[in-house]
Amino acid sequence: MIRVAKLGERGLIKRIWAIITERGLSFSAVPKTFDDAIAYRYEGGYVVLTNDGVNEKTDKLPGMSWRDLGWRLGTMCVSDLAAKGCQPLGMLISLNVPRSMYVEAIDELYHGLIDAAQEYGFEIWGGDMGEASEVVADGFMIGLSRKEPIWRCGIRPGDVILVSGDFGLTGAAFHYLLKSGRAINEGHMRRILEAAYRPRARLELGLALAELNCINAMMDSSDGLAESLHQLSEASGVGIVVHEIPVAKEALEYANANNLDVNELVFYGGEEYELVFAIEQRKVKDALDVLRDRGFHIRVIGKAFKGAGVFIKDHRGKLTRLKRGWEHYR
Amino acid sequence: MIRVAKLGERGLIKRIWAIITERGLSFSAVPKTFDDAIAYRYEGGYVVLTNDGVNEKTDKLPGMSWRDLGWRLGTMCVSDLAAKGCQPLGMLISLNVPRSMYVEAIDELYHGLIDAAQEYGFEIWGGDMGEASEVVADGFMIGLSRKEPIWRCGIRPGDVILVSGDFGLTGAAFHYLLKSGRAINEGHMRRILEAAYRPRARLELGLALAELNCINAMMDSSDGLAESLHQLSEASGVGIVVHEIPVAKEALEYANANNLDVNELVFYGGEEYELVFAIEQRKVKDALDVLRDRGFHIRVIGKAFKGAGVFIKDHRGKLTRLKRGWEHYR
Repeated sequence: MIRVAKLGERGLIKRIWAIITERGLSFSAVPKTFDDAIAYRYEGGYVVLTNDGVNEKTDKLPGMSWRDLGWRLGTMCVSDLAAKGCQPLGMLISLNVPRSMYVEAIDELYHGLIDAAQEYGFEIWGGDMGEASEVVADGFMIGLSRKEPIWRCGIRPGDVILVSGDFGLTGAAFHYLLKSGRAINEGHMRRILEAAYRPRARLELGLALAELNCINAMMDSSDGLAESLHQLSEASGVGIVVHEIPVAKEALEYANANNLDVNELVFYGGEEYELVFAIEQRKVKDALDVLRDRGFHIRVIGKAFKGAGVFIKDHRGKLTRLKRGWEHYR
Repeated sequence: MIRVAKLGERGLIKRIWAIITERGLSFSAVPKTFDDAIAYRYEGGYVVLTNDGVNEKTDKLPGMSWRDLGWRLGTMCVSDLAAKGCQPLGMLISLNVPRSMYVEAIDELYHGLIDAAQEYGFEIWGGDMGEASEVVADGFMIGLSRKEPIWRCGIRPGDVILVSGDFGLTGAAFHYLLKSGRAINEGHMRRILEAAYRPRARLELGLALAELNCINAMMDSSDGLAESLHQLSEASGVGIVVHEIPVAKEALEYANANNLDVNELVFYGGEEYELVFAIEQRKVKDALDVLRDRGFHIRVIGKAFKGAGVFIKDHRGKLTRLKRGWEHYR
């Protein structure tokens, strides 16, 4: 008998898929690789589906309100669809709560979800109620897309790897809140905490990227940048070298004040809903021109190569293997 | 501050919908009333969505295997779509488990889900993993339908109320398993336990009913027959009189052996995935001929009237109000 903690989330997912495959269950959705979302083709396009959940114990940070947690649940699902270049349409919520819970906290959770719905333009269509010892809220979201969504699996050797923002803010926030870190100046600290309490999905950017028709692969960075790079590399069957580390200046300042390795914050923070994507080398300049004209903050961070694994290249050209990131149950 | 236990599931759902409405969130799905599922219209038809969940503590009966629990999760979602007359296509599963859980139990849960997928003809498209103190598994299922699905809200005064089977088996099983009831003869006891451990959704019947084009309203009886009748009555704005109680003979035998009121078992058992539906009086005979020819076991149990409330009419014509059924958190 094996405990979940020993196998870890990735091991568990592989094991479950092996069972499904062995039993010969058909699978007519796309893609055939692991991804943030799944799509079913109908005559006019694709129904795109995703789900994600929050748990009071693992996701409600100190100082985080129920409203923030509701916002996060909406944002997590939107981010998965944003990474497919798909506008979210509607959401169902499975809400599991203890019967001793205060209804006012649930009100707040839904206010946060509605905040997200209004911000990102999706609707709340219903859901299901159940009991649990702690709050476990699972969200299911769909969108419709005329075009095939962008998957994790399309990177080709030579493609350029880009990201939508600066990383490390949530890593700093988690350290500050969970390990009693030392605060830096107030304005910077506010930006760090805001990133953890009210993360934003890059929906507008995801939709803009889909319109460009030159994105070979994309995913969000909700499990941390390192894990996203590994997932993209694995799904696409290519190696990735990172030559530019996208550090948020507040994260660097926080790392210095707390004697931390800033790369730990950048690559392993997680719950940072940026987009990580790949464009063919010769199309990068035009794409960047369009995106920067539209006000998007985009950074080139690396390149794909024929091979496997994810590496960091330092200024002397030395390659270091980037270890994998966060997973549940570990 | 109000606790969830005080408000109950129905009160909580109403409260949440009031918040969503007050905040002015748009709602472009159908129907506009509470239902088992929701649908979004696209140019070629409807995407039909539903979700439902199981919890180790509230749903895993004594003697029930993890495989049975997985089967039940699939069956619950299929039953919601069956009640809409819609073939399920694919399912996502949010699985929340403690890290100390044995992986072999999760294997079994998925084997049960795959059993259901093969039986009902849906696919497993993925999902999400999270942590919780006990197993909380939420399922999300979609189907596509050319025609508008059948809702709870279309009953008209004079319509005949029908059900797909005999009731009371799960009520007997719950009493036997949870209150150490007295067993009846082995074959009958087996049918009672089978109904609780391996309930079957009436998918074939739901699809056949949709083809008939004469079903004014339908829902499943997962919260118990009494609750279904109340929901149908409320959603449609009609009253319902039950003049024929659809008792399973094994339930009657069990009730007699245990000195129970069999109507308690029939109306309040729950987790019984039969269909409850309404047909216009003048179309009933033809519909029954077709359905019985195809081997479906259908019973006429009552009639809708202009008014409100759900009543039982005894053989002397006396009306008794049927109290509402089970709800979460109470």
